[in-house]
Amino acid sequence: MDVITLGESMVLFTPDSPGPLRFATNFNKKLGGAESNVAIALSRLGHQTGWISRLGSDEFGLYVRNFIRGEGVDTSRVIFDEQNQTAVFFKGLNPGQDPNVFYYRKHSAASQLSPENIDESYVSKAKYIHLTGITPALSPTCRETIYHVLDLAKKHKQTVVFDPNIRLKLWSKEEASDVLSDIAKQCHIVLPGIDEGQLLTGNDSPEEVANDLLQGDTHTVVVKLGEKGSFLATKDHQQYVPAVNVSHVVDTAGAGDGFAAGFMSGLLRGFDYLQSVELGNRIGAHALSVSGDVEGYPYWNKMNTNNQEVLR
Amino acid sequence: MDVITLGESMVLFTPDSPGPLRFATNFNKKLGGAESNVAIALSRLGHQTGWISRLGSDEFGLYVRNFIRGEGVDTSRVIFDEQNQTAVFFKGLNPGQDPNVFYYRKHSAASQLSPENIDESYVSKAKYIHLTGITPALSPTCRETIYHVLDLAKKHKQTVVFDPNIRLKLWSKEEASDVLSDIAKQCHIVLPGIDEGQLLTGNDSPEEVANDLLQGDTHTVVVKLGEKGSFLATKDHQQYVPAVNVSHVVDTAGAGDGFAAGFMSGLLRGFDYLQSVELGNRIGAHALSVSGDVEGYPYWNKMNTNNQEVLR
Amino acid sequence: MDVITLGESMVLFTPDSPGPLRFATNFNKKLGGAESNVAIALSRLGHQTGWISRLGSDEFGLYVRNFIRGEGVDTSRVIFDEQNQTAVFFKGLNPGQDPNVFYYRKHSAASQLSPENIDESYVSKAKYIHLTGITPALSPTCRETIYHVLDLAKKHKQTVVFDPNIRLKLWSKEEASDVLSDIAKQCHIVLPGIDEGQLLTGNDSPEEVANDLLQGDTHTVVVKLGEKGSFLATKDHQQYVPAVNVSHVVDTAGAGDGFAAGFMSGLLRGFDYLQSVELGNRIGAHALSVSGDVEGYPYWNKMNTNNQEVLR
Amino acid sequence: MDVITLGESMVLFTPDSPGPLRFATNFNKKLGGAESNVAIALSRLGHQTGWISRLGSDEFGLYVRNFIRGEGVDTSRVIFDEQNQTAVFFKGLNPGQDPNVFYYRKHSAASQLSPENIDESYVSKAKYIHLTGITPALSPTCRETIYHVLDLAKKHKQTVVFDPNIRLKLWSKEEASDVLSDIAKQCHIVLPGIDEGQLLTGNDSPEEVANDLLQGDTHTVVVKLGEKGSFLATKDHQQYVPAVNVSHVVDTAGAGDGFAAGFMSGLLRGFDYLQSVELGNRIGAHALSVSGDVEGYPYWNKMNTNNQEVLR
Amino acid sequence: MDVITLGESMVLFTPDSPGPLRFATNFNKKLGGAESNVAIALSRLGHQTGWISRLGSDEFGLYVRNFIRGEGVDTSRVIFDEQNQTAVFFKGLNPGQDPNVFYYRKHSAASQLSPENIDESYVSKAKYIHLTGITPALSPTCRETIYHVLDLAKKHKQTVVFDPNIRLKLWSKEEASDVLSDIAKQCHIVLPGIDEGQLLTGNDSPEEVANDLLQGDTHTVVVKLGEKGSFLATKDHQQYVPAVNVSHVVDTAGAGDGFAAGFMSGLLRGFDYLQSVELGNRIGAHALSVSGDVEGYPYWNKMNTNNQEVLR
Amino acid sequence: MDVITLGESMVLFTPDSPGPLRFATNFNKKLGGAESNVAIALSRLGHQTGWISRLGSDEFGLYVRNFIRGEGVDTSRVIFDEQNQTAVFFKGLNPGQDPNVFYYRKHSAASQLSPENIDESYVSKAKYIHLTGITPALSPTCRETIYHVLDLAKKHKQTVVFDPNIRLKLWSKEEASDVLSDIAKQCHIVLPGIDEGQLLTGNDSPEEVANDLLQGDTHTVVVKLGEKGSFLATKDHQQYVPAVNVSHVVDTAGAGDGFAAGFMSGLLRGFDYLQSVELGNRIGAHALSVSGDVEGYPYWNKMNTNNQEVLR
Ligand SMILES: Nc1ncnc2c1ncn2[C@@H]1O[C@H](COP(=O)(O)OP(=O)(O)O)[C@@H](O)[C@H]1O
Ligand SMILES: Nc1ncnc2c1ncn2[C@@H]1O[C@H](COP(=O)(O)OP(=O)(O)O)[C@@H](O)[C@H]1O
Ligand SMILES: Nc1ncnc2c1ncn2[C@@H]1O[C@H](COP(=O)(O)OP(=O)(O)O)[C@@H](O)[C@H]1O
Ligand SMILES: Nc1ncnc2c1ncn2[C@@H]1O[C@H](COP(=O)(O)OP(=O)(O)O)[C@@H](O)[C@H]1O
Ligand SMILES: Nc1ncnc2c1ncn2[C@@H]1O[C@H](COP(=O)(O)OP(=O)(O)O)[C@@H](O)[C@H]1O
Ligand SMILES: Nc1ncnc2c1ncn2[C@@H]1O[C@H](COP(=O)(O)OP(=O)(O)O)[C@@H](O)[C@H]1O
Repeated sequence: MDVITLGESMVLFTPDSPGPLRFATNFNKKLGGAESNVAIALSRLGHQTGWISRLGSDEFGLYVRNFIRGEGVDTSRVIFDEQNQTAVFFKGLNPGQDPNVFYYRKHSAASQLSPENIDESYVSKAKYIHLTGITPALSPTCRETIYHVLDLAKKHKQTVVFDPNIRLKLWSKEEASDVLSDIAKQCHIVLPGIDEGQLLTGNDSPEEVANDLLQGDTHTVVVKLGEKGSFLATKDHQQYVPAVNVSHVVDTAGAGDGFAAGFMSGLLRGFDYLQSVELGNRIGAHALSVSGDVEGYPYWNKMNTNNQEVLR
Repeated sequence: MDVITLGESMVLFTPDSPGPLRFATNFNKKLGGAESNVAIALSRLGHQTGWISRLGSDEFGLYVRNFIRGEGVDTSRVIFDEQNQTAVFFKGLNPGQDPNVFYYRKHSAASQLSPENIDESYVSKAKYIHLTGITPALSPTCRETIYHVLDLAKKHKQTVVFDPNIRLKLWSKEEASDVLSDIAKQCHIVLPGIDEGQLLTGNDSPEEVANDLLQGDTHTVVVKLGEKGSFLATKDHQQYVPAVNVSHVVDTAGAGDGFAAGFMSGLLRGFDYLQSVELGNRIGAHALSVSGDVEGYPYWNKMNTNNQEVLR
Repeated sequence: MDVITLGESMVLFTPDSPGPLRFATNFNKKLGGAESNVAIALSRLGHQTGWISRLGSDEFGLYVRNFIRGEGVDTSRVIFDEQNQTAVFFKGLNPGQDPNVFYYRKHSAASQLSPENIDESYVSKAKYIHLTGITPALSPTCRETIYHVLDLAKKHKQTVVFDPNIRLKLWSKEEASDVLSDIAKQCHIVLPGIDEGQLLTGNDSPEEVANDLLQGDTHTVVVKLGEKGSFLATKDHQQYVPAVNVSHVVDTAGAGDGFAAGFMSGLLRGFDYLQSVELGNRIGAHALSVSGDVEGYPYWNKMNTNNQEVLR
Repeated sequence: MDVITLGESMVLFTPDSPGPLRFATNFNKKLGGAESNVAIALSRLGHQTGWISRLGSDEFGLYVRNFIRGEGVDTSRVIFDEQNQTAVFFKGLNPGQDPNVFYYRKHSAASQLSPENIDESYVSKAKYIHLTGITPALSPTCRETIYHVLDLAKKHKQTVVFDPNIRLKLWSKEEASDVLSDIAKQCHIVLPGIDEGQLLTGNDSPEEVANDLLQGDTHTVVVKLGEKGSFLATKDHQQYVPAVNVSHVVDTAGAGDGFAAGFMSGLLRGFDYLQSVELGNRIGAHALSVSGDVEGYPYWNKMNTNNQEVLR
Repeated sequence: MDVITLGESMVLFTPDSPGPLRFATNFNKKLGGAESNVAIALSRLGHQTGWISRLGSDEFGLYVRNFIRGEGVDTSRVIFDEQNQTAVFFKGLNPGQDPNVFYYRKHSAASQLSPENIDESYVSKAKYIHLTGITPALSPTCRETIYHVLDLAKKHKQTVVFDPNIRLKLWSKEEASDVLSDIAKQCHIVLPGIDEGQLLTGNDSPEEVANDLLQGDTHTVVVKLGEKGSFLATKDHQQYVPAVNVSHVVDTAGAGDGFAAGFMSGLLRGFDYLQSVELGNRIGAHALSVSGDVEGYPYWNKMNTNNQEVLR
Repeated sequence: MDVITLGESMVLFTPDSPGPLRFATNFNKKLGGAESNVAIALSRLGHQTGWISRLGSDEFGLYVRNFIRGEGVDTSRVIFDEQNQTAVFFKGLNPGQDPNVFYYRKHSAASQLSPENIDESYVSKAKYIHLTGITPALSPTCRETIYHVLDLAKKHKQTVVFDPNIRLKLWSKEEASDVLSDIAKQCHIVLPGIDEGQLLTGNDSPEEVANDLLQGDTHTVVVKLGEKGSFLATKDHQQYVPAVNVSHVVDTAGAGDGFAAGFMSGLLRGFDYLQSVELGNRIGAHALSVSGDVEGYPYWNKMNTNNQEVLR
């Protein structure tokens, strides 16, 4: 197993056309979930990945599990919950503005994830553990699960990659900042977006954000900068890595998760950090020109790795 | 005001085509809610109705309020809740079987309805109060609200019409039976479906069900019998009232609510009980040939009341 | 040229799903028009047909012309009107009931059809002239046009086939009955539905209806009887001709026009009247199992004429 | 009542995808009508508004009435016409060009609006009367109705706001110019688009247009300038008011009506003219990023009035 | 591994609404393929299954592989072909008639399947081998592959289950009959539809068909009889097994494959032949009430095995 | 007859929304085919055109024939093939990238086109013959057919217009270059895109490409340069002709075919070469703002020929 990740995936409903959701008449069903995005992107890039979660024992739970399994991700540790439901959410599109998101995830099956749901022998086989800042916001047991996995990773000397992914619909800035800072410093690699870095550190520039986060066990930070690319910082090397040029941005959702997948893919292939960040930038860019989170991630055999352009 | 009702309405998502929901790709947005069904049907029949509820201060809350208001129902007492969301639900269609329903209504705005949300001066103006057995299943405060409204109705000498509407996805048979029996006997008119009557009384036949329910303040019971019509029972008169013949049944949802509306419409027009039940049967029949709960209810001016046939 | 017909064709909008039109959100665009139905059905059966009309010089006019031309019907005499529009109509489907139709055809381009629009040398080349009772209801000039064509047919000794096609949304029973009776007796072959025959003659049975219509120039009457088939009457021969058995009736629109086409196709092939009526019944039956007027008419080479079953 | 407006609303059909309408296969149903746009926008901004009109007693009439009523606009004076139909129109979208519009509104129910349909006691209660230049183009009785309402407003000393809204599909430039100039000078506030101002006055610049229109009873003119904002002119003050910056313009329909609503909302709130124009500009801008006329108008409680940016 | 099957799967396009395909405007994408149907149905029933095939290295190949993999079927032996494409087909629905099917599968990737593509060590692990009569019709190399697999099964003493599945669009009756008879007698269990049995044996009754097919290695025959259920025949026992009663038949496609899966599931669970046929009947019935081949197959944990009714 | 062209037309399926085809759920049916594009565009411009081809005797063949016939193109020489199918193809849209195209045209009916299918008396009546480089790539008999038509054109002294239209999915660069160069020099007018010109001649600049192609019978070359317009070259005159400015490019498919039609339309109207190229540029520009190949071509009576702007 190359990478194991855990978190909540949901069914996403998006209307056919932009505008306020109350006027939408037709909705399409899609998959949403940062961690499964990463697992799927990694699987397409040729890596063995596992996704751990809880889903409702309902139609939407089967949809989520089968979609992710269909992408080649190992879902053997997904637990079907007879008591709680698979979460759903709705996303209204407003051209030129942030999407309008409505979650129905309180008391969802995934929010009941707890340390007992984690199979140590399974987790211990992964080269990398990928965690996000969404999971600890879901419930106290989810938060405990994250800490439990951090302990296991320490015990098994696994590298932990952390994407803060702050969702202010789920908790307050203060609580998010406290908890995520604490988690971040127990992770070896931290991949904040610049806004998240600012929120976590109180600093403004990528340089300062990165320096602040390079503490505890954290030896590498990459600050994601959207169309400006990313900023790579280890204790002894720091550098801006420009983005791939994308002419038609359709939907930015999934770019950050694509970055994480590309970056880990680089590391798994033995690329150095710079090359891995470049690969992260490329996979992030692939997410942009398609509506939906995972639809844009490329298969490794369709990519021309000598070519800086996004090929599809 | 002719009738005031209160309860939860939700956004309903139904797929384009029948089959398990996990394979559906396109969903349509509709309105769902037994009490708003009754209010809408009554409004089309020419009566002044008010619907009391709480909705999330979100896109779906506006959709629900505007739809119901658009139908001519007074929504001036609807409260928009900044903390809790408008509920949604999904309904999978399986030809020849019961639909497969998934609710996302726990902790919804409507479940926070409480006695303080009831404006006594508003409620006291109605000739009839309409309640259903769904509301007390939603939360303790909802249950208190029902009892509070019963008290107000007593104080203002209003007639209360009760539709047990047992939803076993919301509570156990035992709890439902206890609570609803207690409520029923404080209501003047009770309109159970035959299954509900059986569950509430432990009896089998419409006659026995009706006799059992004719207790406390209850002076009239109509047992709804689907394609067999209904059974009318007062303390001194009992009679089967045959259904209108409907050749193409598309969707039975909303038939019971249509019955309640037709029956109350009859009473409001000064019809006797038998005529009112006949009108109930006719409005119930109108709901059957259209997908959606409220789409089929007729406008009074499109109905030929001398004609036993369903006209549209 | 085998058959020339003239009349109005319109764009038809039908909702995706049944129910009152005010709740429909998606509409499909189709072609509607009794005379073009006949022309199209005849063309598929291998005959040369021409359709004369006026259309608005607008997008919908091009749609109608191109659709009909695409079916192989000669549209060289269609006039594009810069002043008046192509008509549209909407059809709401109510399972088990008649569709709910809303026309927007007043002052349409076709209603401006007048005798000057008729090219005598073109019309005179046809073996059969097909007229319907819709055209004289559209406007005084349309009515004049019908009488003008009757004169031309007389002059050129052509057989005129008349389908009364009474549309009570367009005129009163009295006016329809007066005008259409007068036209009918100048036509050689009259093809009423049984209801129309009753309205025109005041009689009940197919026999009486036919006898009454066998006057003036009319030597042959076929009364269409829906699932009971049709009743053929000439001055010296009368006979019921049973319908083809159709298990799934989806949409009855277009059956009568299919009958007319099949019947004329038989005559054009040299079939006797009975065989021609049988072919009419078969083509009528083909219209039933598909939504839309013309979609179901068969191509001659897909029909097995020895086989009484509807083949497709 | 804050504002009363009167005019025609129609059902609008737009295709799913851009291109000539003859190739479109799926159409969506929406609401169209300048005056109801204004009433709806005002209602969302928190004002009591009434909309007077005639609708066909048909499915589309109910759709239009219920939609507008659902938005909180008083429709108690809408008359359902048993004789004439609700109008419809079709709009083809051609990227980068003006939409291609086809009306079916001749002899519509609304075109039969006449002075007797106006309830003086109702109209007299409004602080503002809103009129557009579309209504007088619909029919002679509609034109009389406008003059009748002007008389009533004079009698009851109400402020009349006039949007010339010239529709050259309905009448000639000459007739439009004559009639609308005459009406404009009887209105207190005139809100022409720059093109309309040019047509009415024969002048080019906003300054000249405004000066010319400041005659008769007209004391305030605002010339709408699209992305350049608007030009405010009273007898003693004139000023350009820049537009809100909108990055993604999806559909400009409804911007002018949003401006009128925002401007009147300002006046109703006691804003000065400049502030009211600024609010007009903001509401106009909200209409741009959504397809459909009314979908984009904001609710007052979702707007941050200290913020010049369009918030949604 | 419980069952291994091999064959071609394709992308199926079906129109939104019934009628001739030339008038359809919207098509939905689905999965089609008898062998993957069986594999998916078995997987839902709780068995480990593998599906061997070739797919084009194209979007549709990924769709097919991911769909099947998502259902829990092992696809590790699927070969992506850079030269040849994934097949597609179109299915027009005509109510009350057989669907109209158009294949685009000549020279498809799957038709290039050849003995070298078969991994003996993989195949040898299965308890059952499932083959259909479609594969040998695709190409000479496909036919060789079937014989090669029969040889491997013999060598490894595996039970072979054969569904003749005669497709007359792919080859002539004569060729089909010759080849399939030869294959059938090398298989232990043969599951013909009654029509297929008639074609293979020249006999009429289920009894005669079964007796004729009980030759060579064939020790068990089940003749599928549609709504009449099935006829089970071993050398010493023969019996009709009635079908489950299904009130709404939506789409019969996939019933035969569901039967095969249910029957094998019974054998794998240690059921006797009769019980296995009963389970086959039940799973076949599940396929009928949903459009699409695989959408209706049930999960084992949703079935109440004590209940003869189809539960879903 | 003004122009006769011959080649393959196919049914094109495009998804509702951009992104990889494997995630698309709804597909729309359209027409595709370079030669029928040219014939349709010419017909709309007022010219008599004929399109020769073979189609499968199936639903899609009827769709293609009827669509093209509906556009006014003579299809009397289209042959329906009982053995081979009408081709289909799928086109995935990726914003900002080339579409992803999948053909199912091997062994199609059109690929069986052969010299015997060409009716000399029909072909000899055209003023211009239009050929493309797609046809010779389809099969040896198609290639022979092209040479046969070239011979007929020579015999009847007709002008041949050739669009190289190189499709590298159909053959190799080398084969394409050899065959097309040979054909080009037998044609009087050659209309390559700049890429095609480069591939055929090995040169870079429009000037060099044109000079190289001005050999054999070729007396005029126009190199199409996309948004840069085109380069006109005869033996004694060479000139760049700027494109029409198009603000919103939706779909570039069909631009080259529109150019060819506009150019030939000019020649047929007696325009000089420069004017004809200008008309070509204008018609090419019309194709750009609409999705689909032929949807954007204008009708002659909707064009203001004095106006350089694209009018629609
Ligand atoms: N507009 C863009 N153009 C090119 N690349 C982009 C663009 N937006 C995002 N990316 C790429 O995707 C990566 C992640 O996107 P970003 O939006 O920064 O992540 P997050 O959503 O986690 O904040 C960026 O580091 C960059 O490489
Ligand atoms: N199949 C039917 N045919 C005719 N009328 C029906 C049919 N089903 C319901 N109705 C009418 O609607 C009323 C309410 O329907 P029912 O299904 O009994 O209510 P509930 O859903 O509350 O149990 C019935 O009393 C009857 O008059
Ligand atoms: N339900 C049916 N079953 C079989 N054939 C039918 C059916 N309905 C109509 N037809 C055939 O179509 C013909 C015309 O249909 P009909 O409904 O009688 O015509 P019209 O619409 O002109 O009254 C009939 O004569 C009959 O042959
Ligand atoms: N492109 C735009 N950007 C920003 N604001 C705009 C734009 N177009 C319109 N508006 C705003 O909407 C108002 C009305 O739009 P306009 O198009 O001028 O009205 P009308 O349609 O009545 O001519 C303008 O005054 C301006 O404030
Ligand atoms: N109409 C039906 N009602 C109930 N069961 C059916 C029906 N049609 C098929 N089945 C079940 O599915 C099984 C397979 O269907 P059948 O149509 O006989 O297979 P095939 O398609 O292979 O010929 C049958 O043996 C029966 O058990
Ligand atoms: N972006 C564009 N803007 C304006 N005109 C264009 C554009 N693209 C193509 N055209 C016009 O269409 C013609 C043909 O388009 P082009 O793409 O060059 O053809 P082809 O597809 O055959 O290579 C061009 O010569 C030009 O006149």
